[in-house]
Amino acid sequence: MKYKLLSRLDLPKDLKKLSLKQEEALCREIRGKIIETVSKNGGHLSSNLGAVELTVAIHRVFDSPDDKIVFDVGHQSYAHKLLTGRYRSFDTLRQKGGIAGFTRPSESVHDACVSGHSSNSISVALGIAEAMKLSGDNHHAVAVIGDGALTGGLAFEGLNNAGNSGTNLVIVLNYNEMSISKNIGGIATYLSEMRTQHSYKRLKLGAKKVIGSIPVIGEGLQNMISRSKDSLKERLIHSTMFEDFGFEFIGPIDGHNLEKLEAALRSAKEMNCPVLVQVNTVKGKGYRPAEEQPGEYHGVSVFDIETGDKPASTESFADVFGTELAAYAEKDERIVGITAAMKYGAGLNHFKGALKSRLYDVGIAEEHAVSFAAGLASMGKIPVFSVYSSFLQRSYDELLHDISIPNLHAVIAICNAGIVGGDGETHQGIFDIPFLTTVPNVTVYSPSGYDELKLCLKKALYEDTGLVCLRFPKGEEEKCDIPSSDSYTLVGGGSDTLIVSYGRTAVNAFEASKELGCDMLKLTRIFPLQNDVFDIMKKYRRVFVFEETYRCGSIGEKIKAEIPSAELTSLEGFVPTMTVCEAFDLYGLTKEKIVRKIGEQK
Amino acid sequence: MKYKLLSRLDLPKDLKKLSLKQEEALCREIRGKIIETVSKNGGHLSSNLGAVELTVAIHRVFDSPDDKIVFDVGHQSYAHKLLTGRYRSFDTLRQKGGIAGFTRPSESVHDACVSGHSSNSISVALGIAEAMKLSGDNHHAVAVIGDGALTGGLAFEGLNNAGNSGTNLVIVLNYNEMSISKNIGGIATYLSEMRTQHSYKRLKLGAKKVIGSIPVIGEGLQNMISRSKDSLKERLIHSTMFEDFGFEFIGPIDGHNLEKLEAALRSAKEMNCPVLVQVNTVKGKGYRPAEEQPGEYHGVSVFDIETGDKPASTESFADVFGTELAAYAEKDERIVGITAAMKYGAGLNHFKGALKSRLYDVGIAEEHAVSFAAGLASMGKIPVFSVYSSFLQRSYDELLHDISIPNLHAVIAICNAGIVGGDGETHQGIFDIPFLTTVPNVTVYSPSGYDELKLCLKKALYEDTGLVCLRFPKGEEEKCDIPSSDSYTLVGGGSDTLIVSYGRTAVNAFEASKELGCDMLKLTRIFPLQNDVFDIMKKYRRVFVFEETYRCGSIGEKIKAEIPSAELTSLEGFVPTMTVCEAFDLYGLTKEKIVRKIGEQK
Repeated sequence: MKYKLLSRLDLPKDLKKLSLKQEEALCREIRGKIIETVSKNGGHLSSNLGAVELTVAIHRVFDSPDDKIVFDVGHQSYAHKLLTGRYRSFDTLRQKGGIAGFTRPSESVHDACVSGHSSNSISVALGIAEAMKLSGDNHHAVAVIGDGALTGGLAFEGLNNAGNSGTNLVIVLNYNEMSISKNIGGIATYLSEMRTQHSYKRLKLGAKKVIGSIPVIGEGLQNMISRSKDSLKERLIHSTMFEDFGFEFIGPIDGHNLEKLEAALRSAKEMNCPVLVQVNTVKGKGYRPAEEQPGEYHGVSVFDIETGDKPASTESFADVFGTELAAYAEKDERIVGITAAMKYGAGLNHFKGALKSRLYDVGIAEEHAVSFAAGLASMGKIPVFSVYSSFLQRSYDELLHDISIPNLHAVIAICNAGIVGGDGETHQGIFDIPFLTTVPNVTVYSPSGYDELKLCLKKALYEDTGLVCLRFPKGEEEKCDIPSSDSYTLVGGGSDTLIVSYGRTAVNAFEASKELGCDMLKLTRIFPLQNDVFDIMKKYRRVFVFEETYRCGSIGEKIKAEIPSAELTSLEGFVPTMTVCEAFDLYGLTKEKIVRKIGEQK
Repeated sequence: MKYKLLSRLDLPKDLKKLSLKQEEALCREIRGKIIETVSKNGGHLSSNLGAVELTVAIHRVFDSPDDKIVFDVGHQSYAHKLLTGRYRSFDTLRQKGGIAGFTRPSESVHDACVSGHSSNSISVALGIAEAMKLSGDNHHAVAVIGDGALTGGLAFEGLNNAGNSGTNLVIVLNYNEMSISKNIGGIATYLSEMRTQHSYKRLKLGAKKVIGSIPVIGEGLQNMISRSKDSLKERLIHSTMFEDFGFEFIGPIDGHNLEKLEAALRSAKEMNCPVLVQVNTVKGKGYRPAEEQPGEYHGVSVFDIETGDKPASTESFADVFGTELAAYAEKDERIVGITAAMKYGAGLNHFKGALKSRLYDVGIAEEHAVSFAAGLASMGKIPVFSVYSSFLQRSYDELLHDISIPNLHAVIAICNAGIVGGDGETHQGIFDIPFLTTVPNVTVYSPSGYDELKLCLKKALYEDTGLVCLRFPKGEEEKCDIPSSDSYTLVGGGSDTLIVSYGRTAVNAFEASKELGCDMLKLTRIFPLQNDVFDIMKKYRRVFVFEETYRCGSIGEKIKAEIPSAELTSLEGFVPTMTVCEAFDLYGLTKEKIVRKIGEQK
């Protein structure tokens, strides 16, 4: 039996009965199960492998679900899932109806909150801890956050409120010097220096405890030391930034040493006040290819366990965008690239050589990225912020306030627009159209293929003014013989039925239109729509709109206000984990479903 | 002549020629002009009075507009406006077509960016400084930010990216221990401790300079000291948090001492690297009522200069909400109030006595407020976050990710919904409906008066599930004899024309309907709208919708998708500074304009 402990133990309960040797064996099994499953289903590898011992130690010290464990981002929660009753269903990881790649309260009482977006864990855990305090519940809230997520402003807002809260809040800083790629900024440098420091706080606490145990006199001495602590610290020891925020600090702890982890967490728990425990871990721990190239194995599709080999990656929309933008940037010094810790996913790895001086990786800080772009634009630069659709949700106010009100010219390249597959609800790019169209003076393009993407990029850089958004899906284009345009394309003529679509859905819609003998209107600049587009639609008896976006605020809704008879097909509510094909089928966006829908309604 | 210097000098140019005595006289004139103007026009008083010397010193040391000065929030930019060619038009402050209450690039080349929302200055200034660096421009970007704004995560993201940037960026931390009310959290405590420290960095720099001036040997010594600086600092001196972020640090400086300010800013300028200068100021400086009660004079309408007396404030929507909520909270321990540094404006000052333990002021941190609410809600509390409409724009992602996906029950009370008057573009509450309706499972109420507000609050707390938003305007209700409802109210019968409206606009619309003899449908739960509402509308030959919100994403747009003939009246683009009445007239929302529009179209 390959997973002897995982399959036989009643977890997390039995965890507390294990010997150190058994714990170590369990950690090996967890790593094996994670590597095996991710190699088949894809998912997050490096971050999960780094947090195995940490997760075991947390579940030994704290009592989930009475104590609440909040994983930031959630891409380190696989061990937690295996330890809380999901070993048997773990093979369904990131599949339709299966185990989600992030924590989901709907999946288990041990998942304290929804995770997926970075840097919210401290705030959520503080909310839980304050609720406990108000209810006289002495349990703990534990936030587990990586140093990458700490660059997000939301995490700072959480720290600022938590330090003096007097709650049973333990923040575990999982320090591995990485966000998704290399960690960014002053806080990274600061933490990197801290990593090498001795764990002075533990020593100090130890001493305090010993003194405190001397009856009568000891207590007085202890209080005196407590009182003098601040001035002492300030004069003699460089206190940590976290202490400045009001936290007790423990660390750094070796994040792969079960005994030390457990001791540190137990101390933290006993303090009954906000404590920050710094744990140093190795991303990818226990799987050599991932240890050596943690960034490469952060999020993966399938791979060969023996060799670490992954299928050759094909050119994606993001690649085409990045290559093309880099070519413009070579010739035009005004162009500046900005990414929020997503250089590869957002195509900006194509800024190479001298161009690197015009590429800014700002860390996980989407709000800053937009305000920073505003500053650049105000000086005549052409900033291009490339970002995943779902993460741009963080920048709504900055788009309105810093870009749109002064009508500055900035380009937002929106990657992973539309349905993304395995990552599920939190990562679907289905809200960017609804929220971007509420921003005055915005222009939005949604090209259906690479050639069209190139046309749109040129127009966005050199012809449009104000805020210009260029959205494209994850992965590669579907080949299609519908002509490219930076505005719209009408194909056919003579039918009384018109299919309207855009982006990659337009490819399916076009194929359906050929089969049905309908006319097809492919939109490329999807917002604002001009009268000429509506004039075309008005000529048809029937107009069907197909789009891969949330219904309320969709382009279809805007069309329907002009063309009341238009029939809309779009997405309702959140889209859970499933493949893109499965989602297209479910929501009626495949060629077959489009044919059927239009065929049924004469 | 009351303002001898202000009226005669060619500013900012002449500023550099003034003697200290003249500068001091100028500062008195600036204060006088600010107090005089704000006492008549309303506006921000305390923060502007605190920054007078600082602003004079900045304009003496830096050369605007080549050096770019970025004021955070902008409610301390009045002295800057008076020093940059706007003395003669200053009487029009916060009036239609006049001088804006915040910086506006459209108003002057000296206004480097749009301000109004907090915490973006470091990011914008960094964008400017990086643009300068890329273009080989040796000028400086100067961000002026208060300690209150520093609690916003965006400011932290800016700090994190700026410290190591190697740009000519000077951040002036205007430290006055206040955001709008008392400053909040760990960073406040930290800064408060710093305030009393000696300005060691200046001494250290001074010593370094002296050593450096010794030829040959001096330089070597200086380098040696530089190299050993870090370890020295860590062992002997508690370095500031800002140094941890990579900034040079100067301060604290007396923010009302012109000579010291100028010397510090000149040192900062000469360093040609990211420097943070901490300046201690007194909010309200020079006007006793404001010095004694800075919070009371932060944002004011008219007041009596001699006595400081302000007109008695009347009960507002926010008061009614706060009083009612406090009454529920007395009986129901699950209710928790949350404000982001806006206790008074958001009506939560009515949480008094024992209720204070269930009121959380999280500082200027709207993102955290929502994620924190999610944590509370997940533990069975009923969090009520009361926030201005325009500031809730910061929380879009958190509403989607932390509240809506897990479908937690949280109430958002949205104050200052609709047009706000003097504060202009950045503060108009006209986007909340467009962006909130893109969030799945949301319920939105927009009561037209106090009784209706109370009905909606009860329903939001005890009958609705999921995310419930309750939006109401600034100021007080207009009395109106249309019946209250928590759903909708149909008045009349027999007409072929229906007027649809909600919120305070419904009062004007109702008066118009009486004059016209039309029927009137007042919506209270404005989203989602059910079929019964559309069924009513379908019975009419003509349907007119009037609303005080941005067009794209408005309720009218949603109505039009069902009732194609509906005629919409709403807001296009940003609404600049003008009174609410002026805006209603301009956009066709007064009783008279409604009567005219409907009368014209038969």
